[in-house]
Amino acid sequence: MSLKSEIFEQPAVLARLLENQKERIRAIAVALRDYDIRYLFLVARGTSDNAGLYAKYLWGAFNRLPTALATPSLFSLYGKPPSLKNALVLGISQSGQSPDIVQVMAEAQRQGVPTLAIVNAPQSPLAQMAQFVIDVEAGPELAVAATKSYTAQLMVIAMLSAAMSEMAGDTEDRWADLERVPALVQQALDLDPVIARAAERYRYMEQCVVLGRGYNYATAFEWSLKMKELAYIIAAPYSSADFQHGPVAVVSQGFPVLAVVPNGAVFADMFALLKDLVTKQGVELLAISNRDEVLSLAHTAFRLPSSMSEWLSPLATIVPGQLFSYYLTRAKGYDTEAPRGLHKVTLTH
Amino acid sequence: MSLKSEIFEQPAVLARLLENQKERIRAIAVALRDYDIRYLFLVARGTSDNAGLYAKYLWGAFNRLPTALATPSLFSLYGKPPSLKNALVLGISQSGQSPDIVQVMAEAQRQGVPTLAIVNAPQSPLAQMAQFVIDVEAGPELAVAATKSYTAQLMVIAMLSAAMSEMAGDTEDRWADLERVPALVQQALDLDPVIARAAERYRYMEQCVVLGRGYNYATAFEWSLKMKELAYIIAAPYSSADFQHGPVAVVSQGFPVLAVVPNGAVFADMFALLKDLVTKQGVELLAISNRDEVLSLAHTAFRLPSSMSEWLSPLATIVPGQLFSYYLTRAKGYDTEAPRGLHKVTLTH
Repeated sequence: MSLKSEIFEQPAVLARLLENQKERIRAIAVALRDYDIRYLFLVARGTSDNAGLYAKYLWGAFNRLPTALATPSLFSLYGKPPSLKNALVLGISQSGQSPDIVQVMAEAQRQGVPTLAIVNAPQSPLAQMAQFVIDVEAGPELAVAATKSYTAQLMVIAMLSAAMSEMAGDTEDRWADLERVPALVQQALDLDPVIARAAERYRYMEQCVVLGRGYNYATAFEWSLKMKELAYIIAAPYSSADFQHGPVAVVSQGFPVLAVVPNGAVFADMFALLKDLVTKQGVELLAISNRDEVLSLAHTAFRLPSSMSEWLSPLATIVPGQLFSYYLTRAKGYDTEAPRGLHKVTLTH
Repeated sequence: MSLKSEIFEQPAVLARLLENQKERIRAIAVALRDYDIRYLFLVARGTSDNAGLYAKYLWGAFNRLPTALATPSLFSLYGKPPSLKNALVLGISQSGQSPDIVQVMAEAQRQGVPTLAIVNAPQSPLAQMAQFVIDVEAGPELAVAATKSYTAQLMVIAMLSAAMSEMAGDTEDRWADLERVPALVQQALDLDPVIARAAERYRYMEQCVVLGRGYNYATAFEWSLKMKELAYIIAAPYSSADFQHGPVAVVSQGFPVLAVVPNGAVFADMFALLKDLVTKQGVELLAISNRDEVLSLAHTAFRLPSSMSEWLSPLATIVPGQLFSYYLTRAKGYDTEAPRGLHKVTLTH
């Protein structure tokens, strides 16, 4: 039962980060002001890459930083790394071990640009290579599918965004919002019995799409990855906009659409699409939200607290997705702890 | 039959670009030297976004430019655009009409950074907003699924890379390689009868993964999109590295893996993974390649010319993918010209 217990550890992990890392993160935000940073260059794989998508939207919106996702093969296999001048290079990794990720960090160091690692293993090669390191302190993660290390990465990303805003003179107090996150995540975990029952209906689902936009684009990708890793379902993640530029063609009567649609700036756009998909095309909608309109439209609805701030919602919206993936995996009779073909640490070049 | 005829127009479209646009593209490469460009900020949707992935790898490798994919919702729905200082903003679009894409370009103009549009509609809103415009001259594209506009976008991206290298003093003559592309694409089209026969085997395939890496990461995404748009197959694209960080779990005996594996710097890494997948996990491999090792490993093999340069291979490797998607759509009895739920011009916000 280690996967389930790791999912339930999340409020404690997040509370610990708020307690232990705030001053260190503020100090890093101060130190970063010495550099002329124009954009973020992000290197990560798998779940950590999905956490990076959150940074891309959050730091874009609040800290005005555009994000380039790295192309590790240019550094490793091609030996033709791009110039990183004026970049902040951010490596995110649970284990800090994959050689291609470490190689990008090494090149950043050679080029003399500032580097930051967000890891769950502060002694790892990735951390040792970076100028600044933040330990997500998630504790040992034994299940192959990452859960608590993901939300811990999101929390560090959110805290760093708040600290950078603060250092830039923004007077909005984002820390008060951050302090509410562990309780929000606990409320999402309280859906556990509802989700356990709901998963049964999807026992024979083999494929689906997962939609999310803006801050929750990351959630669509991470939920989709859990569905693939654990339940072996081909789950294809999209923003509601990208989905309409082609992939929507796959949809027919009864096709399952999983959607992450909390209240916020992208809600109206997402809701208009989902309403069309349900009423005109007859899709099966499973929604994670805190808005009545979409919850009542859905065949299966996971309701989150209405008080949630959109910018922090990804920390809570992924939780029903994790639990749903867990219970669906059990319903299908698969191994929740050690999915086929995977190891906890993946080494790619 | 407009989709098929548009696929077959590609050598002529590419030859026309080489003939008509070389000097204009060189002039743009010269003009761009006046700007202090640190990275590329790319805005596109659907097929054009996949063409952008080619720019990300090609310009990264040859022109040392990192690429950030835009987050259009930050510009439109959130109203919180990031700072684009030191970026070159590149918009790629067949129609040049989607409001979210146009809005990013408008913001770039407001911020005073250089902007370039690659379009098939030089009078479109996107083109009118951009400082520099390159017309891909693909002619009217009537089929909803884009084919010739995609390879034309790749060609412009490749020509611009060659021109920028030239202006930076690189003495390698990449134009000679470019001149060979129309003939290479014609050789790929000559596989037509082979592909028509091969598609039958996949009549009942409902899902698959599509693998490609480096320059052909774009090909994996674009082939996957054609499979979704036309044949309504849930095709999930990955780099061979990202695939190993989780999604590989979906694979079981007989699972279809489509792979784009031309000779080049990433071949050995891709081949090692594919060999494992076939010999240890019993996947069904469909390969587009010009290397015997992988063609003989595959259940279905589409052989391309051995003389192809890796950096230009995406212009040829997508062609068997387009034809396969076309014939599979016919085998399934679907409409190749007007896929359900799609329009030629998609307007998203």
